[in-house]
Amino acid sequence: MTQNRDADRTPVTVIGLGLMGQALAGAFLRAGHPTTVWNRSAAKAEPLIAQGATLADSIADAVEASPLVVVCLSDYDTAHKLLDPVGELLDGRTLVNLTSGTSAQAHETAEWAARQGSAYLDGVILAVPQGIGTADAIIVYSGPRAAFDLYEPALRSLTEATTYLGGDHALSALHDMAVLGMMWGVLNGFLQGAALLGAAGVDPAGFVPLVRQGIGIVTDWLPGYAEQIAEGTYPALDATLDTHRAAMEHLAQESESRGVNADLPRFIQALADRAVADGRGGDGYAAMIEQFRKPSGARS
Amino acid sequence: MTQNRDADRTPVTVIGLGLMGQALAGAFLRAGHPTTVWNRSAAKAEPLIAQGATLADSIADAVEASPLVVVCLSDYDTAHKLLDPVGELLDGRTLVNLTSGTSAQAHETAEWAARQGSAYLDGVILAVPQGIGTADAIIVYSGPRAAFDLYEPALRSLTEATTYLGGDHALSALHDMAVLGMMWGVLNGFLQGAALLGAAGVDPAGFVPLVRQGIGIVTDWLPGYAEQIAEGTYPALDATLDTHRAAMEHLAQESESRGVNADLPRFIQALADRAVADGRGGDGYAAMIEQFRKPSGARS
Ligand SMILES: NC(=O)c1ccc[n+]([C@@H]2O[C@H](COP(=O)([O-])OP(=O)(O)OC[C@H]3O[C@@H](n4cnc5c(N)ncnc54)[C@H](OP(=O)(O)O)[C@@H]3O)[C@@H](O)[C@H]2O)c1
Ligand SMILES: NC(=O)c1ccc[n+]([C@@H]2O[C@H](COP(=O)([O-])OP(=O)(O)OC[C@H]3O[C@@H](n4cnc5c(N)ncnc54)[C@H](OP(=O)(O)O)[C@@H]3O)[C@@H](O)[C@H]2O)c1
Repeated sequence: MTQNRDADRTPVTVIGLGLMGQALAGAFLRAGHPTTVWNRSAAKAEPLIAQGATLADSIADAVEASPLVVVCLSDYDTAHKLLDPVGELLDGRTLVNLTSGTSAQAHETAEWAARQGSAYLDGVILAVPQGIGTADAIIVYSGPRAAFDLYEPALRSLTEATTYLGGDHALSALHDMAVLGMMWGVLNGFLQGAALLGAAGVDPAGFVPLVRQGIGIVTDWLPGYAEQIAEGTYPALDATLDTHRAAMEHLAQESESRGVNADLPRFIQALADRAVADGRGGDGYAAMIEQFRKPSGARS
Repeated sequence: MTQNRDADRTPVTVIGLGLMGQALAGAFLRAGHPTTVWNRSAAKAEPLIAQGATLADSIADAVEASPLVVVCLSDYDTAHKLLDPVGELLDGRTLVNLTSGTSAQAHETAEWAARQGSAYLDGVILAVPQGIGTADAIIVYSGPRAAFDLYEPALRSLTEATTYLGGDHALSALHDMAVLGMMWGVLNGFLQGAALLGAAGVDPAGFVPLVRQGIGIVTDWLPGYAEQIAEGTYPALDATLDTHRAAMEHLAQESESRGVNADLPRFIQALADRAVADGRGGDGYAAMIEQFRKPSGARS
């Protein structure tokens, strides 16, 4: 963490002191920013006050305390419920919204903020609260470049992995969901394997090192797959889709015969079946992108 | 790669010179093992002969050439079709089968080999052919410990990541499928994200570094999840299942509104719904193991 203790003492306001908001405010305080906080349940501010934070009496006071206002609430509806009444006070300030949502919600909020005369950055946190302030947190931002550049030093108090994605406010939400989808893929794949091994009496802890190696190998394939996707051709550099399908059949059969859930293996096998039916059996796995691109319910 | 050029010159036979078999034979040759090869289509042996391999005239001659016989064929049926006629020649030798299959096939082949008087190791390669001989290959073995110990130095010619899983011949196939399932999870999650970003005009190549970071974070959660699974309690150390479900809903909505396939997001959301219906909404993601353990079609 860079701590621009001398260079940057931008006052910061944090609205929303849930698990994540508390972690954000704590990181700003540790980096030396004068930090004003507000939360519906004021008691959650206590530990932060002890670390030097100022508790605002009202959300209006909170907004007026700083040029940089960071919001982290349950959802966009809550953010609007709280900010709409004090919208005009945001004029000339920068609003950074770290609440998770869809890209449509980000767009809608950006338009609202523009009407208030506020610069708006939509951000997404890819981390757990304990990760804030460490290298284990990723935070991405989208919106006006100038606003990001102005407050980047302050935002870096939250994590070194502070990334600007571009001007389109949709980008943060899209990247958030894309990364989360991949994380659920890892987790569900791990749990399927753990269930299968568990049914055979194998402790899943022993499986973790192998999973790590497997993840390392497959991760290294991704840049090549991304290139193939960009080019629209999918030569099989490693295994063909036909080979993958045969192995998916093994996983499904094994799950069924050991009495563990085979829904996920059968689901991905059906997806591969569609790609093969489209003539992609001799191509590599990246050819599956065409299935992911088709709207649900559409068949070739 | 350890090359026990002086210590280990065990003669090795490789039966099956497809993409993978050729890579295996090449690695044995580079490590200094006298290597005999056989393949249905003899022409595939040419490059190996140029590197010093001996081409056997028949599969019987191939088996008789070495105490260690490594087989790598399309599937178990092919392996049986080729080996059954020469089974008695395996008496006193060690058969290592690196053909992919289910654990039932491994068990059945182990019983067959025992009847021939052969020691049998069932192995699985977690690598592409190009990875053989490098640190990018993992090969796991199961079967009699003594046979593994005897030939471990020779087998290490294929990769340093040579792992003995235990005496039960099922273990290699089970671990193979468990790791593959996790790999498909990564790949499908990546493709879902790439499709979503692509629909918004974002090049998937730019997404890879973020995916890498995300994979690193989630991988570090797995040892803790494995412990929770072993203990049967799933406190939410990071996000709760309720939180994950809300984010899954975002991914599904976003996919639908951008016209990309939402089947996978809806599928995993349905899985999370079942866990929440079972009262696990306040628990962490590892609680999903209970869903993966339930036979398909079974509901709580
Ligand atoms: N926790 C994580 O691991 C994580 C990771 C990445 C992103 N995020 C995102 O960060 C955001 C906050 O998450 P969190 O973990 O901090 O959630 P949380 O602990 O549940 O906190 C929710 C916050 O929203 C406030 N709030 C909810 N409903 C309200 C209402 N009707 N009126 C006023 N305030 C209301 C809460 O105030 P009270 O304290 O008064 O209830 C609290 O400040 C979410 O969008 C989440 O998706 C979280
Ligand atoms: N390639 C990979 O990335 C990879 C990774 C991990 C595991 N594996 C596993 O390794 C094994 C071999 O894969 P591979 O990539 O080498 O496949 P491959 O290139 O298709 O080779 C198949 C082998 O089986 C032989 N074969 C097939 N049918 C036969 C028959 N009826 N009679 C006699 N021989 C027959 C082929 O002989 P001909 O040359 O005469 O056709 C060839 O030697 C499979 O179980 C696969 O799952 C492969």
